Amino acid sequence: MTTAIHDVRAPSIDDVVASHKSLRARRPLVQALTNTVSTNFVANILLSAGASPAMVDNPEEAGLFAGIADAVLINLGTPTAAQVESMRLAAAAAQKAGRPWVLDPIAAGGLPWRGGLAAELLAFKPSAIRGNASEIIGLAGLGGGARGVDSSADPAAAIPAAVDLLAHATAVSASGPVDHAVGRVAGRTVLVKIGGGSALLPRVTATGCSLGALAAAYAAVAPDPLTGLVTAHVHFAVAAELAEAKAKRPGSFAVAFVDSLDAVDETALRERAKIAAIDVEQ
Amino acid sequence: MTTAIHDVRAPSIDDVVASHKSLRARRPLVQALTNTVSTNFVANILLSAGASPAMVDNPEEAGLFAGIADAVLINLGTPTAAQVESMRLAAAAAQKAGRPWVLDPIAAGGLPWRGGLAAELLAFKPSAIRGNASEIIGLAGLGGGARGVDSSADPAAAIPAAVDLLAHATAVSASGPVDHAVGRVAGRTVLVKIGGGSALLPRVTATGCSLGALAAAYAAVAPDPLTGLVTAHVHFAVAAELAEAKAKRPGSFAVAFVDSLDAVDETALRERAKIAAIDVEQ
Amino acid sequence: MTTAIHDVRAPSIDDVVASHKSLRARRPLVQALTNTVSTNFVANILLSAGASPAMVDNPEEAGLFAGIADAVLINLGTPTAAQVESMRLAAAAAQKAGRPWVLDPIAAGGLPWRGGLAAELLAFKPSAIRGNASEIIGLAGLGGGARGVDSSADPAAAIPAAVDLLAHATAVSASGPVDHAVGRVAGRTVLVKIGGGSALLPRVTATGCSLGALAAAYAAVAPDPLTGLVTAHVHFAVAAELAEAKAKRPGSFAVAFVDSLDAVDETALRERAKIAAIDVEQ
Repeated sequence: MTTAIHDVRAPSIDDVVASHKSLRARRPLVQALTNTVSTNFVANILLSAGASPAMVDNPEEAGLFAGIADAVLINLGTPTAAQVESMRLAAAAAQKAGRPWVLDPIAAGGLPWRGGLAAELLAFKPSAIRGNASEIIGLAGLGGGARGVDSSADPAAAIPAAVDLLAHATAVSASGPVDHAVGRVAGRTVLVKIGGGSALLPRVTATGCSLGALAAAYAAVAPDPLTGLVTAHVHFAVAAELAEAKAKRPGSFAVAFVDSLDAVDETALRERAKIAAIDVEQ
Repeated sequence: MTTAIHDVRAPSIDDVVASHKSLRARRPLVQALTNTVSTNFVANILLSAGASPAMVDNPEEAGLFAGIADAVLINLGTPTAAQVESMRLAAAAAQKAGRPWVLDPIAAGGLPWRGGLAAELLAFKPSAIRGNASEIIGLAGLGGGARGVDSSADPAAAIPAAVDLLAHATAVSASGPVDHAVGRVAGRTVLVKIGGGSALLPRVTATGCSLGALAAAYAAVAPDPLTGLVTAHVHFAVAAELAEAKAKRPGSFAVAFVDSLDAVDETALRERAKIAAIDVEQ
Repeated sequence: MTTAIHDVRAPSIDDVVASHKSLRARRPLVQALTNTVSTNFVANILLSAGASPAMVDNPEEAGLFAGIADAVLINLGTPTAAQVESMRLAAAAAQKAGRPWVLDPIAAGGLPWRGGLAAELLAFKPSAIRGNASEIIGLAGLGGGARGVDSSADPAAAIPAAVDLLAHATAVSASGPVDHAVGRVAGRTVLVKIGGGSALLPRVTATGCSLGALAAAYAAVAPDPLTGLVTAHVHFAVAAELAEAKAKRPGSFAVAFVDSLDAVDETALRERAKIAAIDVEQ
């Protein structure tokens, strides 16, 4: 299904470095409608990586703020009725204003009600979708679906689902031991694999959520959604490697990870990024 | 009121070690309906200890998810109207499906509205109840009740209340400098005292909440609720001791405590567990 | 506009030290109605500094609890409909019971809906208001207003707005590189500048929120609201300096900051406090 890439220009390490510089220079304002488990961590991850977070998620302000923010994250982790209304308003406002927004369909594969909500939000054309493999497979309606919020599938198994979701979003990724991101470049579907990271990431809650938030930050500054999504994955994976070099257990790893998102610079990106782009036959 | 135990088989260190091994092997999925202060910490404590958290607390999904999860935690810390509805649905679904669930009656003694809610939830027969002494006394309707979320009573003073609550739950504990857990073993009421821990625990918010969550995780894997509850207290207390050996102030202690929940193994349990079982005359 | 102070008795380092001792001795119970990003951090900051937090923010209990607590914090970060109702009830109950309460008007300058809510709450006469410069300017209706939650103005530019707000509150502060607090002393308006702190504070989310919470804690124990507000700023700034001496990046700085709030004692306050009181000509 996949072959080595020849003539397609997929995101390269130079593109990643350029987007990272742009994030630090522009410090985009990211509106995050996210779950109660992740709010504090997501805000700290954004601040540390170089963005400015704002968690405006009430129906009175969510739509207005989506027109002010540089990008919007919508994460389905623990939706309340008011938050669901805010998500619709923010997604609609972001689409109308031409602002990038990222959908993180937490547990959408395993739970029908939020699966319906996720499907409804797809109509507002997210710039990017980030999930684990089970969530991407579930969102695409291709079965799958883990019991909880952790994935029971390998990201490679989510490639067909991710490609299907390109009907709704410009770029789609499934996180895992090796992250898989797909998007369109010059009329062709491109798969980018991002290696590295740390086995400690899934031992800390809301790391996936904060990767979705970082994807929103990069969507605001990257030249295209796939480059933004890939850069978020690379920044995240490199920071996780740096953190694991300092801490071996989940509590201290989480602290070191926040530090490392701040510490990642061009040198770290060029030395540690593991990106491989592949042309996907259709 | 209490005498040395002779013929009753109360949870021993071997039972604790066996339940701990079972937690690590089975990694139970714990649905936590908990307060906004504790969500992130509770999830990280569960991940670090060896369980898998999911914070599904909306009315559309809470009942369904209680049938999927291995155990449910219901914590009354900051209940919203929607969360209260979800608690009823989750407790009913857990009872119907035969899933263990744990009630953490935060501040139930001091505030009548949530005291009523806690009393109502008792009808769904929690496997275990965990609170501080004031909360256990308040929930049993025996007076007491602190001004806030901290206890003004000693756990030993909560023994009669805890025994009374065995009419509703299979095991009940009151946390404090020495934790006290009661349950029925072979038709007799048994009291287990768990020592150790750290004076820094109450200096970190949501440590009590996360002990309740750990009790839910152990309820899913232990042979009986009292053993599960005692094992949660022991795992917690041993981790706190390991953490205090590394950190003397609240911020770094919290990080070391998450690390230590991961680090606790059979050796640490056998070397440090302080359990004393006593037969309670009735 | 400002001249050196001569005959006015503004809060001094001795007043700061006395209020700090009082906080540690009395451990006031602080009810915090705050945003989802900050709940855990605010609770830990209060515990570490020496207060007792309780996050009772539902309409059924918020008013009752405001009569039990020693002080109330109302923070407009992520208001839900139920929380807004609770804020009204808690502010009214605190005013009626003569309890001090602090308003933290997060992003009130940039968003009209919450600006209206903040203006409405002023009728309940907060003891103190704490915000960044943009928020203080926006709340006073003097224009300004940043795009998100971060300030685009210097605290010195907020002095006229802060003075205007003394029509509603007894003391008002604007945080920034140098914090500015105003209040009335012996019939004159006094400005107190608090220096120190750390450039890492705005790199950690909810630090401003937790300063507002600390202001509520000190309002419960200080002889007057301006002394309480100044002491909160000083305790915070000194702790931030101690933390920066140990950690240079946001994740580890946040942990060290919680530790340092606990570590701050009279010696640290006297050695490091940077307070300058100035008489404001009106």
